[in-house]
Amino acid sequence: MYKAPVEEIAFTLKHVAGLTPALEGGHLGDLTDDLVDAILSEAGRFATEEVAPLAEIGDRQGARLADGAVKMPDGWPALYKAWAEGGWNSLTASPDFGGQGLPHMLHVAALEMWNGGSMAFAIGPTLTIGAVEALAAHGSDHLRRTYLPKMISGEWMGSMNLTEPHAGSDLGVMKTRAERRADGTYRLFGQKIFITYGEHDFTDNIVHLVLARLPDAPAGTRGISLFLVPKFLVDEDGSLGARNDAYCHSIEHKLGIHGSPTCTMIYGDGRFGDEPGAIGWLIGEENRGLACMFTMMNNARLAVGMQGVAIADAATQKAIAYAKERTQGKAPGWQGSGMSPIIEHPDVARMLLTMKVLTQGARAITYACAHAVDMAHGDEAQHWAERASLLTPIAKSFATDAGVDVASLGVQVHGGMGFIEETGAARLYRDARIAPIYEGTNGIQAIDLVTRKLPLSDGSHVRGFIAELHAIAAKASAANAPQLGETGARLEAAIADLEAATEWLLATLAEGRQAEALAGATPYQRLFGLVLTGAYLAKGALADGGDGRNAERAALCRFAAENVIGETAALKDRVMSGAASLEAARVVLE
Amino acid sequence: MYKAPVEEIAFTLKHVAGLTPALEGGHLGDLTDDLVDAILSEAGRFATEEVAPLAEIGDRQGARLADGAVKMPDGWPALYKAWAEGGWNSLTASPDFGGQGLPHMLHVAALEMWNGGSMAFAIGPTLTIGAVEALAAHGSDHLRRTYLPKMISGEWMGSMNLTEPHAGSDLGVMKTRAERRADGTYRLFGQKIFITYGEHDFTDNIVHLVLARLPDAPAGTRGISLFLVPKFLVDEDGSLGARNDAYCHSIEHKLGIHGSPTCTMIYGDGRFGDEPGAIGWLIGEENRGLACMFTMMNNARLAVGMQGVAIADAATQKAIAYAKERTQGKAPGWQGSGMSPIIEHPDVARMLLTMKVLTQGARAITYACAHAVDMAHGDEAQHWAERASLLTPIAKSFATDAGVDVASLGVQVHGGMGFIEETGAARLYRDARIAPIYEGTNGIQAIDLVTRKLPLSDGSHVRGFIAELHAIAAKASAANAPQLGETGARLEAAIADLEAATEWLLATLAEGRQAEALAGATPYQRLFGLVLTGAYLAKGALADGGDGRNAERAALCRFAAENVIGETAALKDRVMSGAASLEAARVVLE
Repeated sequence: MYKAPVEEIAFTLKHVAGLTPALEGGHLGDLTDDLVDAILSEAGRFATEEVAPLAEIGDRQGARLADGAVKMPDGWPALYKAWAEGGWNSLTASPDFGGQGLPHMLHVAALEMWNGGSMAFAIGPTLTIGAVEALAAHGSDHLRRTYLPKMISGEWMGSMNLTEPHAGSDLGVMKTRAERRADGTYRLFGQKIFITYGEHDFTDNIVHLVLARLPDAPAGTRGISLFLVPKFLVDEDGSLGARNDAYCHSIEHKLGIHGSPTCTMIYGDGRFGDEPGAIGWLIGEENRGLACMFTMMNNARLAVGMQGVAIADAATQKAIAYAKERTQGKAPGWQGSGMSPIIEHPDVARMLLTMKVLTQGARAITYACAHAVDMAHGDEAQHWAERASLLTPIAKSFATDAGVDVASLGVQVHGGMGFIEETGAARLYRDARIAPIYEGTNGIQAIDLVTRKLPLSDGSHVRGFIAELHAIAAKASAANAPQLGETGARLEAAIADLEAATEWLLATLAEGRQAEALAGATPYQRLFGLVLTGAYLAKGALADGGDGRNAERAALCRFAAENVIGETAALKDRVMSGAASLEAARVVLE
Repeated sequence: MYKAPVEEIAFTLKHVAGLTPALEGGHLGDLTDDLVDAILSEAGRFATEEVAPLAEIGDRQGARLADGAVKMPDGWPALYKAWAEGGWNSLTASPDFGGQGLPHMLHVAALEMWNGGSMAFAIGPTLTIGAVEALAAHGSDHLRRTYLPKMISGEWMGSMNLTEPHAGSDLGVMKTRAERRADGTYRLFGQKIFITYGEHDFTDNIVHLVLARLPDAPAGTRGISLFLVPKFLVDEDGSLGARNDAYCHSIEHKLGIHGSPTCTMIYGDGRFGDEPGAIGWLIGEENRGLACMFTMMNNARLAVGMQGVAIADAATQKAIAYAKERTQGKAPGWQGSGMSPIIEHPDVARMLLTMKVLTQGARAITYACAHAVDMAHGDEAQHWAERASLLTPIAKSFATDAGVDVASLGVQVHGGMGFIEETGAARLYRDARIAPIYEGTNGIQAIDLVTRKLPLSDGSHVRGFIAELHAIAAKASAANAPQLGETGARLEAAIADLEAATEWLLATLAEGRQAEALAGATPYQRLFGLVLTGAYLAKGALADGGDGRNAERAALCRFAAENVIGETAALKDRVMSGAASLEAARVVLE
């Protein structure tokens, strides 16, 4: 059973991702180290004791649709109620509407733990928090007063309605339309697919944020507006009124996250109300809907990254426990009686350590990204905003790929038992698979990284970041500690690979050779993630956690340097000279 | 829908794996090129038109247990009947008992296609063929006369009963026991788990081959005997007699291959018959059961490798079809109207080409292995037997890892649709995951490769093989063809990595540093597979298939050299200097 890794999370936040310096520098208001520990500890307890025990039934029963209503798995509505009453929905929300105004770092740490308990459960509340962010940033006073307090308390949940059958990665072609009404409201007509938690029985009302196009809107992404469409209209006194003309038509039969209802939502087909059309209110300005969404897009991407970290940690925990218990054969040097625990076999240890490295690397990258988000509210706002922008695609992609890879290794460690659903390793393998896809596929992240993030400040931001990584490697080399093995030298080599690939991409983009740069985008993104994994593990190994685990961190860091990150050379090579053969090989696909 | 890639299979058999030279050298009896084409074509037709259409219902319904009987998915019993009547069960079996005595190469080619149609269906007949092999090689005349004709015709199926709850990879600790009876039969008592097709409604009788231990047997693997235990006893005239005391207690709820019943089998608990004990007949000698199983172990491992190839090909076909149809965004340089098909995006093309390379590499390796099996029956038997031995673990592991990796990429190419079960990409991702586990996990394969296969003929076999690979690379370099890009040089470098890692392992084993060698076994196995992928693609690219696809093959070969096999350097490094950090990092797992 999943146990939230509170200590490792706290260490990573404080000593790797920058929480302690931020606290000491007074960048996080009244927040204290003690409060951080208290929040992490309680979030961990909730994830371990309340969420995790309901993961399996959620997977097995799944969300069920009958007569337009979605029945959630047994025990889940009560779990949600406990979660909301615990105040977890309001962690980062504005105190103006009942939120706690805490840093994003604490939010992602808590997110990791809830997703570790059950990804299918945690994704629902995550979307509400996203809807709160968009509404808080762009909603009218009236909308904010009417909806935010109840969404922040968790009394109502939110949903995000972007995708349509022909508009997924490319939202410019969406067809859902909105018509203006004289009273300032709008009427929406259309179909949205893949709407996570579009319908459920957790809350009485659901606040849908819906992208749609006005009749006179410009074509493409500049003609999309964002609307608030509640399931039930809200009367002036805040009580629920008539049912709005918006409902769930069907839910998907998915590979994983079965407990999460993935809905096809129908707006305005006349099923409810006096006249057809779902009643909506504009959020922000007309035709500026995508800009409103972008407010929360980065945070949503990071939130999906946390799912990768969470699944990876859960899979690693489960595999280690099994490998200690299961005996089979005799490992070299085994002196015990009978068969060895399989963890003694070098190959099994290699799998488990690789899982540890990928998990910890993904955690460090995502937390560093959250730290940048927090710091972007203070001095040096541009620097930190750029850092958050740069790290977001890497955090999303590296962590979600790690989720899949680690979950797959977790199945492998379990042998035949891993293929049996009751063991639970298979559920993680199934759940993990969506994370590299939604909130922008990892391929989209790579395009974003290369074409929009590398050029920030004319490339000087990424260059500055690489200089920071060089400093970590130099410190590792200078430490010359036997327990770090060849960490310093190997990290230097990996960073040099990153640097060369970065300069090549910047030059290639500057020369307008877009296709060539894009051909290497995914290898580059992976290269960046591996380098950051090595660097952040080294940063942790060079810090003193004061928890007696310094030797462990050094050993894992060395293993990463000598057994995991060595692909950087091949990845650099692919970035810098892979495009021609890729283009030439297109003939194979015809 | 899956379409058996008959042309690519024929090309690989003939021009890469060695079928044409073997035919021309007269090593395959009366077999002609025309007959090969006819068999491949008809096997392909059956896989495409008969098997593939029933894959989805097999996954959705699964095998269902009620009252000890397993009901197979709708349409599957008729499919099996058609398959057996088509003579597919008898391809490689001895003509003495009604078989066709065809080479193993044709068998694996057909296996690939049936598994491409439905892995859950194809695995059943595969196991029967394994049982036929063991019985033909080691059974008494009486057993062979009684069982082989009906097993070869497909009237009865077989099952292989090895695993017990505490005896999976390590069979030495199994507990199922056999007692001698005065009439020369035995009575078996025990429980077997994970028994594929242990019970079903395809055939009236099921011939279980069961490993068990005699009361006076030596401990460990040298005390295991093999028995034939039919579901129904067979009367002298060949008709079915009494029900034997062997039955299916339960079936597993699995991640994938739902149509394949995975049974817990109970032997001898008294449910059937006058006295407890399942009646069995010894196959081969007492206590030599594992040797009998080894006869077919290599072939079974290769058969699982074919599942990897099959899933990879099916996933690639599906992803390419989707990527051509689905439009989204505008790829760089896109001149068409509206959105581009996603195949135009470089990142999607990279995924698809990588899938192609891994599939084709896995196919070439597995077919080369089957070729060695065939050649081991002629002159130079030892050479070819060693080649088959060496290639088997690589074929099994590389192809099954490719199955998982390619199926995962296939889901990714589909975006959100990939996560929806109805699309079918998710089924392949689920089905694929068992293949790296069963018939010896890929970690076990790596141990076998390093500790038993490299030392064959004191290392001279593997050295000779590497020399053959050098010759291919030299030919690629000498061709100096622009369409091959840097193939020659990169292949040379990869082979040099393999050579260095091989020599290091041989030396390390010779010095008795077993643990150190085993720490690098999995990276070495992967390194070998990548090198073979590059070399076999080059061999194909340098051949003339006479089918107008030479340019395609050269382009894919170049893509492999420049974009896929570059990890060999990092893998070599991991083999040769990864063990120390692995051992040191064990502290992390405590």
